[in-house]
Amino acid sequence: MKDSLGGKSIILRLELQTEMIHFGQLITVITENGGDVIAIDVIQTGPNWTVRDITVSALEQAQLEAVTGAMKELPGVRLVHVSDRTFLLHLGGKIEMKPKVPIQNRDDLSRVYTPDVARVCLAIHDKQENAYKLTIKRNTVAVVSDGSAVLGLGNIGPYAAMPVMEGKAMLFKQLADVDAFPICLNTQSTEEIITTIKHLAPAFGGINLEDISSPRCFEIEERLRSELDIPVFHDDQHGTAVVLYAGLINALKVVGKRIDEVKVVICGIGAAGVACSKILLAAGVKELIGVDREGALVSSGAYTNPMWNWYAQQTNPNQLTGCLSDVLEGADVFIGLSAGGILKRSDVERMAPRPVVFVMANPTPEIHPDEIEDLAGVIATGRSDFPNQINNVLCFPGIFRAALDCQATTINEEMKLAASAAIASVVAPQELNKLYIIPSVFNQEVVRLIRRAVIEAAIRTGVARRMPREFRLEGTL
Amino acid sequence: MKDSLGGKSIILRLELQTEMIHFGQLITVITENGGDVIAIDVIQTGPNWTVRDITVSALEQAQLEAVTGAMKELPGVRLVHVSDRTFLLHLGGKIEMKPKVPIQNRDDLSRVYTPDVARVCLAIHDKQENAYKLTIKRNTVAVVSDGSAVLGLGNIGPYAAMPVMEGKAMLFKQLADVDAFPICLNTQSTEEIITTIKHLAPAFGGINLEDISSPRCFEIEERLRSELDIPVFHDDQHGTAVVLYAGLINALKVVGKRIDEVKVVICGIGAAGVACSKILLAAGVKELIGVDREGALVSSGAYTNPMWNWYAQQTNPNQLTGCLSDVLEGADVFIGLSAGGILKRSDVERMAPRPVVFVMANPTPEIHPDEIEDLAGVIATGRSDFPNQINNVLCFPGIFRAALDCQATTINEEMKLAASAAIASVVAPQELNKLYIIPSVFNQEVVRLIRRAVIEAAIRTGVARRMPREFRLEGTL
Repeated sequence: MKDSLGGKSIILRLELQTEMIHFGQLITVITENGGDVIAIDVIQTGPNWTVRDITVSALEQAQLEAVTGAMKELPGVRLVHVSDRTFLLHLGGKIEMKPKVPIQNRDDLSRVYTPDVARVCLAIHDKQENAYKLTIKRNTVAVVSDGSAVLGLGNIGPYAAMPVMEGKAMLFKQLADVDAFPICLNTQSTEEIITTIKHLAPAFGGINLEDISSPRCFEIEERLRSELDIPVFHDDQHGTAVVLYAGLINALKVVGKRIDEVKVVICGIGAAGVACSKILLAAGVKELIGVDREGALVSSGAYTNPMWNWYAQQTNPNQLTGCLSDVLEGADVFIGLSAGGILKRSDVERMAPRPVVFVMANPTPEIHPDEIEDLAGVIATGRSDFPNQINNVLCFPGIFRAALDCQATTINEEMKLAASAAIASVVAPQELNKLYIIPSVFNQEVVRLIRRAVIEAAIRTGVARRMPREFRLEGTL
Repeated sequence: MKDSLGGKSIILRLELQTEMIHFGQLITVITENGGDVIAIDVIQTGPNWTVRDITVSALEQAQLEAVTGAMKELPGVRLVHVSDRTFLLHLGGKIEMKPKVPIQNRDDLSRVYTPDVARVCLAIHDKQENAYKLTIKRNTVAVVSDGSAVLGLGNIGPYAAMPVMEGKAMLFKQLADVDAFPICLNTQSTEEIITTIKHLAPAFGGINLEDISSPRCFEIEERLRSELDIPVFHDDQHGTAVVLYAGLINALKVVGKRIDEVKVVICGIGAAGVACSKILLAAGVKELIGVDREGALVSSGAYTNPMWNWYAQQTNPNQLTGCLSDVLEGADVFIGLSAGGILKRSDVERMAPRPVVFVMANPTPEIHPDEIEDLAGVIATGRSDFPNQINNVLCFPGIFRAALDCQATTINEEMKLAASAAIASVVAPQELNKLYIIPSVFNQEVVRLIRRAVIEAAIRTGVARRMPREFRLEGTL
């Protein structure tokens, strides 16, 4: 399968002795080493030489290295340098701060800065809620990480985490017109993280926690939720949960089962696993069994992870014990948030007919979809090169758009369930099938429908501090 | 004098019964109440009515209130609403975050976000300095305040301080293409401020401290300067000092005196007064006398403010005692950073011939310039409606542009002196006169010349971690 992920491409700047090598030969060597020539730019030419930039893409990094190596060997070719397109895109960062209006003269200056800005300051000093009207708080979210659990890379620290947080800020703006600013903290102490975020909160209308390792992420989020009056949302937990549940709503339609009748086994009880379990319980799942390295979690087990003790109390009503294979017997749904390759075809064979199999480990799923295509009712993964990608990007832009627009004090369970239903509803009944249960992140309906549903839920549950205009108008009709 | 500060204007939305009132009558009433009609926009019209937006400016807020009041009384006029142009400009904040490149398809997404961003993260993890190449750290400054000493407003807190910090971020971008992000801290504890800023530092190439009250500002800046490897610059201190000294360089040229021969009296030994004194001592001033509420500071005095004890050791070599009038006898330079009206014409008469008088208290100077125009060699103020405005906006954009471009670890005294000289040099010898000693904040040479001079000073003093291209080329010639 052609990897549509892209990302693996380089730009080779080559000086070619035109009497020694023909351009066709060059292309042949690149192709033979697994490279694909995407673009050619002539930089300089002389009587018997030319400098060209050749953009080459490949399936694997190793192939690009083979191409680069071959260039160094080829007579008549000098490799001037290699540029990586991804690195080029990152030079100097991916986001910038822009004034909304230019300051063209002293009159403008006096309005946006001293002396006239003082009147605006005093209006906020008189009534703190005016910060939502008169500052960036109205539309700005902090994306905060400590770099302790970044992607699949682990604890790489705050400096190395920045590119992910900047990417997230880009997505916030492009998909939902939310201004997000990335903050990577140079501490991994739970208390220090909580205190720092509380101190910097005034400028922001919401806090998106990101890539903070478990179990610290639970306490950090809980404490901040109770101590701040703006939404605090740990995306690795709740973003995943919202999109997973959206996918499950549609997957169950495809296989014709009801949420309150299915047996669900969830494998990997970390931050995302706990959050997914919570949303499924809130959505009405009755038989939910959590499995981690020690097997199925049961209420009689005494776990060192305090979250697991809590978890075991809430789940596994029939007290099933044993390993993953054992508890999968007759299960309708498998949700994998664990590690590549841990699910076997024989495990899926033990499940109920037409099982729903969500294998979301990245980059290698719990089982390769091809291995169970004939058995499964629906398969979803975390990857973009298979059908049905469970991708957080579907959730966070829209849910924060909604929270900011209604000045929500929090993002509660009802708002998350509403977001899931909204995402699921983007796939129309006539479109729905086993290969299309969840919309693309580029589908423009996603943010619009989440926004509407989540604001409604916020108003209904009394956490909205502002009624957006269209909701006001409806109220008066 | 017509107040060119602007800022005092409103937009009146009026519904006019055209049979009852002529538009000319309306204008007459506005003008009679002290308003100036700046713009008229027709919003809607009917057979015998019209809705118009009338933009009105005035010298004083009271006049705008008189205009508004008159509209409510006028037959045939209904005042629909009043919008204040300054408040309109602030709706939703004054800055926004923008992606530098759009994410148009999955290929883009995979490069700026997962999975390919992981390679960029790892490159920084391998070598932390790569953060300067691959993240916003290269061009981004945090503008941090606790809201404890905002403009002349005092301790108005972090929410109300935001409009000032946003305005500063706008100026950073527009004048020097620096991306600045405003952070207002919900704490006024010295230790908590220091810790919070240290925690959020990784994303930033510099920290601009702003509007933090004295004496806490000294310790906060000192500690952060020693504990962080990026520049920390308290603008209220050093920005003022740099621009003051720039003005003084040129003022002394106008009156034909040398910096190492003048007697300088500085009134108001707060944050700015201390910083101005330090730069003057570094610049070679030998006789500097600080005066505050208790009179001239002398080394025998035991002050409760620890900064004053330090200050008295460094200054006043002849141990002059007494009040401001006493020590002004024969002084060449008066620098006021205190309060409106405290300097008398009789005080200036006691100074040396052609005295340099910088009266920078805002909004009311220590003495009105008109009162001493005949006596003084040069007069400067902090206001834009008199000649020679000493304005921090001349310094901070350029000095941070320089610090970022050479990845300076700090902003040291040599860099500040270089910035002052660069600002002074913008006024050409043939342009220099008593009414023009300092350039306008809109003069585009300012940032360019500061940048060059400050980078040179950073390289010379060994605090530059990067040699910008043009300095490298010069080195090789």
